[in-house]
Amino acid sequence: MIIIMKPSSGEAQISSVTSYIRQHGLEVHLSTGKEVTIIGVVGNKNLINPEHLESMKDVERIVPVTESYKLANKKFHPEPSTVKVGNTFIGPGTMTIMAGPCAVENEEQMMLIAREVKKAGATFLRGGAYKPRTSPYSFQGLEEEGLKYMQNAQKETGLATICEVVSNEAIEAAAKYVDMIQIGARNMQNFILLKEAGRSGMPVLLKRGLSATIEEWLNAAEYIIAEGNPNVVLCERGIRTFETATRNTLDISCVPVLKEKTHLPVIVDPSHSTGSYKYVPSMAKAGVAAGADGLMIEVHNDPACALSDGPQSLTFKNFALLMDELTPFCQLVGRTL
Amino acid sequence: MIIIMKPSSGEAQISSVTSYIRQHGLEVHLSTGKEVTIIGVVGNKNLINPEHLESMKDVERIVPVTESYKLANKKFHPEPSTVKVGNTFIGPGTMTIMAGPCAVENEEQMMLIAREVKKAGATFLRGGAYKPRTSPYSFQGLEEEGLKYMQNAQKETGLATICEVVSNEAIEAAAKYVDMIQIGARNMQNFILLKEAGRSGMPVLLKRGLSATIEEWLNAAEYIIAEGNPNVVLCERGIRTFETATRNTLDISCVPVLKEKTHLPVIVDPSHSTGSYKYVPSMAKAGVAAGADGLMIEVHNDPACALSDGPQSLTFKNFALLMDELTPFCQLVGRTL
Amino acid sequence: MIIIMKPSSGEAQISSVTSYIRQHGLEVHLSTGKEVTIIGVVGNKNLINPEHLESMKDVERIVPVTESYKLANKKFHPEPSTVKVGNTFIGPGTMTIMAGPCAVENEEQMMLIAREVKKAGATFLRGGAYKPRTSPYSFQGLEEEGLKYMQNAQKETGLATICEVVSNEAIEAAAKYVDMIQIGARNMQNFILLKEAGRSGMPVLLKRGLSATIEEWLNAAEYIIAEGNPNVVLCERGIRTFETATRNTLDISCVPVLKEKTHLPVIVDPSHSTGSYKYVPSMAKAGVAAGADGLMIEVHNDPACALSDGPQSLTFKNFALLMDELTPFCQLVGRTL
Amino acid sequence: MIIIMKPSSGEAQISSVTSYIRQHGLEVHLSTGKEVTIIGVVGNKNLINPEHLESMKDVERIVPVTESYKLANKKFHPEPSTVKVGNTFIGPGTMTIMAGPCAVENEEQMMLIAREVKKAGATFLRGGAYKPRTSPYSFQGLEEEGLKYMQNAQKETGLATICEVVSNEAIEAAAKYVDMIQIGARNMQNFILLKEAGRSGMPVLLKRGLSATIEEWLNAAEYIIAEGNPNVVLCERGIRTFETATRNTLDISCVPVLKEKTHLPVIVDPSHSTGSYKYVPSMAKAGVAAGADGLMIEVHNDPACALSDGPQSLTFKNFALLMDELTPFCQLVGRTL
Repeated sequence: MIIIMKPSSGEAQISSVTSYIRQHGLEVHLSTGKEVTIIGVVGNKNLINPEHLESMKDVERIVPVTESYKLANKKFHPEPSTVKVGNTFIGPGTMTIMAGPCAVENEEQMMLIAREVKKAGATFLRGGAYKPRTSPYSFQGLEEEGLKYMQNAQKETGLATICEVVSNEAIEAAAKYVDMIQIGARNMQNFILLKEAGRSGMPVLLKRGLSATIEEWLNAAEYIIAEGNPNVVLCERGIRTFETATRNTLDISCVPVLKEKTHLPVIVDPSHSTGSYKYVPSMAKAGVAAGADGLMIEVHNDPACALSDGPQSLTFKNFALLMDELTPFCQLVGRTL
Repeated sequence: MIIIMKPSSGEAQISSVTSYIRQHGLEVHLSTGKEVTIIGVVGNKNLINPEHLESMKDVERIVPVTESYKLANKKFHPEPSTVKVGNTFIGPGTMTIMAGPCAVENEEQMMLIAREVKKAGATFLRGGAYKPRTSPYSFQGLEEEGLKYMQNAQKETGLATICEVVSNEAIEAAAKYVDMIQIGARNMQNFILLKEAGRSGMPVLLKRGLSATIEEWLNAAEYIIAEGNPNVVLCERGIRTFETATRNTLDISCVPVLKEKTHLPVIVDPSHSTGSYKYVPSMAKAGVAAGADGLMIEVHNDPACALSDGPQSLTFKNFALLMDELTPFCQLVGRTL
Repeated sequence: MIIIMKPSSGEAQISSVTSYIRQHGLEVHLSTGKEVTIIGVVGNKNLINPEHLESMKDVERIVPVTESYKLANKKFHPEPSTVKVGNTFIGPGTMTIMAGPCAVENEEQMMLIAREVKKAGATFLRGGAYKPRTSPYSFQGLEEEGLKYMQNAQKETGLATICEVVSNEAIEAAAKYVDMIQIGARNMQNFILLKEAGRSGMPVLLKRGLSATIEEWLNAAEYIIAEGNPNVVLCERGIRTFETATRNTLDISCVPVLKEKTHLPVIVDPSHSTGSYKYVPSMAKAGVAAGADGLMIEVHNDPACALSDGPQSLTFKNFALLMDELTPFCQLVGRTL
Repeated sequence: MIIIMKPSSGEAQISSVTSYIRQHGLEVHLSTGKEVTIIGVVGNKNLINPEHLESMKDVERIVPVTESYKLANKKFHPEPSTVKVGNTFIGPGTMTIMAGPCAVENEEQMMLIAREVKKAGATFLRGGAYKPRTSPYSFQGLEEEGLKYMQNAQKETGLATICEVVSNEAIEAAAKYVDMIQIGARNMQNFILLKEAGRSGMPVLLKRGLSATIEEWLNAAEYIIAEGNPNVVLCERGIRTFETATRNTLDISCVPVLKEKTHLPVIVDPSHSTGSYKYVPSMAKAGVAAGADGLMIEVHNDPACALSDGPQSLTFKNFALLMDELTPFCQLVGRTL
């Protein structure tokens, strides 16, 4: 941590800051320039509250030097992690394809979609049984009933299954029926839910919040891992910007940034980020080229009649076509589909 | 709802859209121009899923005409609402001042702060007992113990009390000790929590999410009201933008926008939005001038030693000074402090 | 300037950075911690290129300590500036009201509006003769002809006049007819224009770019002042965010931030920022309460027939009403209208 | 254009709107629902000012149906355009690689870089002779001298050359020495410059403004084409968002959106968007995979000593490596390097 003092600060102020630091068992490195004085803090930063320092007289600002997340940090875990889900693995050498409808609608539909995405090459079946919807009057999901349909689809096809959870109860139910849970963008800083996901021990797909910085996202992952659960996978699904031509803005450059900062696998979601099936194929390829460990793609038997997010869903035909197109891209980046 | 067809759309496509609408019991108004065809949908929009329409062939886009929130909508409730909390009222004619520390730290502190903010003219004591923090290693709050301190402060001073809740358990605990619950920015779209807050029947202060549009915010309020709890107050606390000179950007123009769209009272938080005590007085005055029904201001006995958010807290002296300065502004806008 | 080295950096890398700094005649303060090494640079920063340092091996990042703008900086000019325009002054103690149409349309209109805004209490007449419009097919302004109408209005009413300029030719023309020139948001980083505005010696109103940080804005002001022209006034007119309920988001908290960082006067524009006449009165009051030195307000004789930006213009009646309402707010903040 | 009336609007208001439309020679389609009345306008929209309508009594809002740009619009020019520059072509079937330093520094450097990027496979040499810099105290470019160095490099290597222009004078000078001009992000809505670029007849690379929507960007292109110059190429170089881990956020999904809306070629700039050489290779590949017609990449002989933007420049070695890696990606998307 570095403390930048105001140009006007006198010896008394500087000394009160350095005393405070030393009292907390940390060392001080003082750098006195013509215009400003800078105080470096050396030692275990958890012994001190940066906000105390920030509100001391004549402190201009505090510059953190080390990240607050540790367990998710590549510095302390240089090798990329692989997360095992059911019989599949997410991580280096593999391109994980999670496919399925936004919402689970009925049993026949889930079975049908599961068979088709399996046939086209997906390894995960996704489907929402608990839907966080902007309006209370929109369809909110089939809940436990929907999870059972997913389990049946898993049994028949062998696909790993993933479902979003929105409450501790949903985590408990999901643990009984599916292989991996998803924390959605709106709950990325629902810390109660993150802790419970951590305690569940289940593999967790953590979607990025609509306006979450990469640092906040990694701190959210830290909440899960700190509960003893290292099985966390990150999912970029678009951030909120001023541009309205796409539903959100896919922050594709987060992929190499994450690969530098964390060992956790990274999935790209071209469906929710763009909001339109027309843009999904090019963004899926871009995700693979950028270095992602997998893709999450919405597929529906009848997009025009989907209960949720129809416009961004691919038909079976378009999904199969995309999988064919993706194959050589995956080979190029050294990953097997 | 209006459907704009692509220029290329033929009669078959237009007819398949209009048939779909009529099958769902709604009427169609067709407007055929040289370049585009526009289809107006007349009737109860809940009978139809706009996303189905959006994914039909040759549909360019759907333009919603009416808002999805009803109970929070001024169109159906033209008079501004007043929310009763303890013995105080939030709404027209009153300027509600909620003051106190970001986090409840200990009993003496709460009592001391309660007395001082009461003396200076506040009517609410705020304090966080459940703290949603970006990092799992930051102070997370005293929980139920903290609520008890608030209750004691309430008993002695008569101030109404408000505390953030982050889980159903916290709502239950809060119901025993404080007068009003707060849903924080990070939980604005935690719909499970919104519903539970609705079922609790307690007055709810709903903070705006960091990147929530006004429409999403009012839909979040609708979740609470739809459970039978009309006691909702909105709180603008800054949105996330590219500017980093302030912690967030106080969206002051949301005040007149909300006054046009909803009957719910609106509170402005100059502390969290700016992140610096230096900017609080001018933003507090701006909030009053803009038409807000109240202010939420952080006050601490020793900002340099606050366990959370010290830099944005006012000292007792500065808070008392600000209250003096605010008085004539409140008179000008016809509100009593 | 502070240089934070990567945890992995060895002595060789650190030494190559410190040698580089010393070779450029600057001093080094080395701070070696357990996890990271920090290098403070002491001396005249203009002797060194931070980008060189940033691309040296094992440099994690560079933290600037001092602002790059000097002439606009309050640190070197602690007293607030007053800018003289015609016979009026913009600065402490005064509330400057600039009023008029978005675009100059014809001579009668300008004369009519000038008389009416003068009567209501404005001291400046604004009007656009050179209009930067998003589409090439929109009305682009009357150019020099429009400036003449403004001059006539100035002669009759005594109001100071201000007009946006978009090119060096427009600056030359404006110098002949009006009292102050305006650099619009889209040209805030048109550095050629800034320099020319500086060389013109005319008072300049510098609007903030749609996505300009406060620091970039002050650097743009620095371009003008560095040409020997200290007569710069800043104008906040809303920034671009994700919110679409208003045209832009009025960043009201920039007012106290600017008052801390610069000595230049600050004007708030509630018309362009909100995009709707309905929100102008409350935002005008908020601007005054926040500490602005003035307001820029669009007024039109017939908003429904304005050639540009009608929806945000006030009628004469509404403008006069607003001026009446503003008077006590100005008194409260110690400024005369 | 569609006009949505307020629920409260009576017959008089509706009739005054429809009269206004008919008086301007346009037809009206009236759609009267239970809650709202919608008025469709049919005919040549240029005969009417939407802003007039928007400020009429009881008009809730106006929904545009057709885009304001025509010449850049794919609807009226369905085939993708190819832009000829020197002896090279930008468009379908080709992957254009523009490489070179941010700023032209001296003659030897330009010659050296030209030879190296040519050897690695680039077809364009880029280099800035007129640098728009945030601070007036930063290096501003060699101007005409720099252009001469580029011309010499062009003569020796045969590479096409491109240079940013910031004024009419710079366009004139560039016309003498280089093959293509670039309008930078900060000047994207400098309409004077756009028109002059149009009149010059030179091929123009139009970079996207930091906070420009895709629609505004295409309107800026329209300014150039409307002057009779169809040789416009678009360049995505990152937009400004809240995320600070990268300098800007590369809006990769603008590529498929642009491919749907316009016939103009699209270039992706992974250097300026990310601000770090480490992220350039993955973003270059993502750009190719997303469907871009080319890439603009910063290359420098000695990034640590570059006068501008060193941290984002590739060394010769890294550039050659990247070109090797890009080759199979280009083959996959059917483009020759």
